[in-house]
Amino acid sequence: MEAMTEEKILSFFQGCIPTDFSSRTQTQADRILRLYAKVREELLQELQKIEGADFKLDTWKRAEGGGGVMSVITEGEVLSKAFVDISIVTGKVPKAAVKHLHQAAKITTDETFTEDYTFLGLSIVCIVHAKNPHVPAGHLNLRVAVMKLNDGAEVGWCGGVMDIHPSYLVPEDVTHFHKTLKDMCDKHDASYYPRFKKWSDEYFFIPHRGERRGLGGIFFDNLMSQEEGNFSFLESCADAFLPAYLPILKAHMCDTYSDQEMAWKQLRNSRYTEFNLMYGEGMKFGLKLSGFQTETLFATVPLTAMWGYKSDPEPGSREDELVQVLRCPREWA
Amino acid sequence: MEAMTEEKILSFFQGCIPTDFSSRTQTQADRILRLYAKVREELLQELQKIEGADFKLDTWKRAEGGGGVMSVITEGEVLSKAFVDISIVTGKVPKAAVKHLHQAAKITTDETFTEDYTFLGLSIVCIVHAKNPHVPAGHLNLRVAVMKLNDGAEVGWCGGVMDIHPSYLVPEDVTHFHKTLKDMCDKHDASYYPRFKKWSDEYFFIPHRGERRGLGGIFFDNLMSQEEGNFSFLESCADAFLPAYLPILKAHMCDTYSDQEMAWKQLRNSRYTEFNLMYGEGMKFGLKLSGFQTETLFATVPLTAMWGYKSDPEPGSREDELVQVLRCPREWA
Repeated sequence: MEAMTEEKILSFFQGCIPTDFSSRTQTQADRILRLYAKVREELLQELQKIEGADFKLDTWKRAEGGGGVMSVITEGEVLSKAFVDISIVTGKVPKAAVKHLHQAAKITTDETFTEDYTFLGLSIVCIVHAKNPHVPAGHLNLRVAVMKLNDGAEVGWCGGVMDIHPSYLVPEDVTHFHKTLKDMCDKHDASYYPRFKKWSDEYFFIPHRGERRGLGGIFFDNLMSQEEGNFSFLESCADAFLPAYLPILKAHMCDTYSDQEMAWKQLRNSRYTEFNLMYGEGMKFGLKLSGFQTETLFATVPLTAMWGYKSDPEPGSREDELVQVLRCPREWA
Repeated sequence: MEAMTEEKILSFFQGCIPTDFSSRTQTQADRILRLYAKVREELLQELQKIEGADFKLDTWKRAEGGGGVMSVITEGEVLSKAFVDISIVTGKVPKAAVKHLHQAAKITTDETFTEDYTFLGLSIVCIVHAKNPHVPAGHLNLRVAVMKLNDGAEVGWCGGVMDIHPSYLVPEDVTHFHKTLKDMCDKHDASYYPRFKKWSDEYFFIPHRGERRGLGGIFFDNLMSQEEGNFSFLESCADAFLPAYLPILKAHMCDTYSDQEMAWKQLRNSRYTEFNLMYGEGMKFGLKLSGFQTETLFATVPLTAMWGYKSDPEPGSREDELVQVLRCPREWA
């Protein structure tokens, strides 16, 4: 199994957090990193067990501050491409990048933006693309951003995403995924699931296709990170991903499939890729940051994808059944 | 062979050109369409002969004005995806779209932009992606844009692209391609090839990769379309594509190849796709236009592509040899 333990993660990132942040922020960053290191370990253990092989470990440092710990597999037996990544960005960050992030989170402050911000971003991302066309792709992303305002005050917010991207609609799977997230959300705030489910349907919209990237889950990006309840919500999100997604992966990874089903999956993969390259906020933010590792951004897209010409499925087919829901999202829980 | 003759193309687009354009512009549009129809026929004849099968014809009308005639093949024996498309956009076009086009062409006028422009755009695009990893992708694009300014005057400009995108470097092929374009350019203006070759190296740059999409050719976007000499330059461009590209396609379409070579091609295809989706001006303009057929825009990307993780080739390998030139373009003619 993966050799980079929780303590090693902490020591890899040691010294990354600029000391001009308040000790409160530094303590919080440490706590979030510990959460990420724990989650990373749990995810890798399960995914490596399923694959029957270790992921490849790759670390990098960002000259301007921060770096990443990436564990990845490509062309596995079960997983076509999957990874767990912890990335940290610190230091002065261009106004454009922070402003973008700020707007994406739908946060409004009266703060005048200075040219460069002292910034701290911590994220963990796990994406699973399986070979079998009957296994949906799964995605978990938790992120915390803190910035130091002109008056020295620090503003922090956090966000998260969990979503599922099947090529074929299996209503009981989608219900299981959404219900697991809803039950988790309801323990914190009854308003969370309905709001964050709706936000995921909005966020994953691909305008030029009139479709969403997958069947959603939850998406939120504007919880204040200083609040204790929000930290525990992030913890709950992290804990909910495996119970929500793993049973579906396990149930379908050995399904038989036809060439036609595989071709359809490749076509769905192209839509996933279009979204990530053209609309994904992570991609946009990452590319605006000098020194951020490009391959971390592109690790998110499926291993392979296919673009045909007018490959819309036959009305009434199983393929069309999925497309209808991508066009008009349903309630699942 | 393709059943849509030159006359049928003209009749399909009849009535598309708004009558509030001057008769001079209408006559010019007619002349350009005839050129496109002729070029389309020549390209299709050659490509269909190579494939040994007809391309599929698909036509569409744009509710706001214009439409397209697309001839396309996917998953052929020789060609993985190839098409010849004539598209026309007319009518009121959003300021943002026209301004974008205007800037892309590096044209400056003192004109104040009104909210919507009366616009006329005519383009022909041919893209060839072959199955064999030793066949470079080839691309021809000719386009004319005319817009009616606030004072009623009409400004028109034209542009074109021809470029080659190999997965393996065969210097004599690249030299042949560039030399054919240079000889053609030199007959019009000795400054064209050096300027337009440089412009292609700039245009096809993928910032996040530090590489270009392919080995260029010529790119120009700011010739005034009203000038007689520029029309004849467009004609020469159209005539040069087949002699520049076809011998290379024919020479390599039956080359033997390994799985590793095919995998490398899939990786190069992913870069082609990244460029088109993230930086291509055609994509950006097309998506800004309401009612433009999305599938025409995505027809440009290769049929299949692969995104690995850190799949950089071994230094000194044949794969690396290509990457070096994508990073530092060479002079070929």
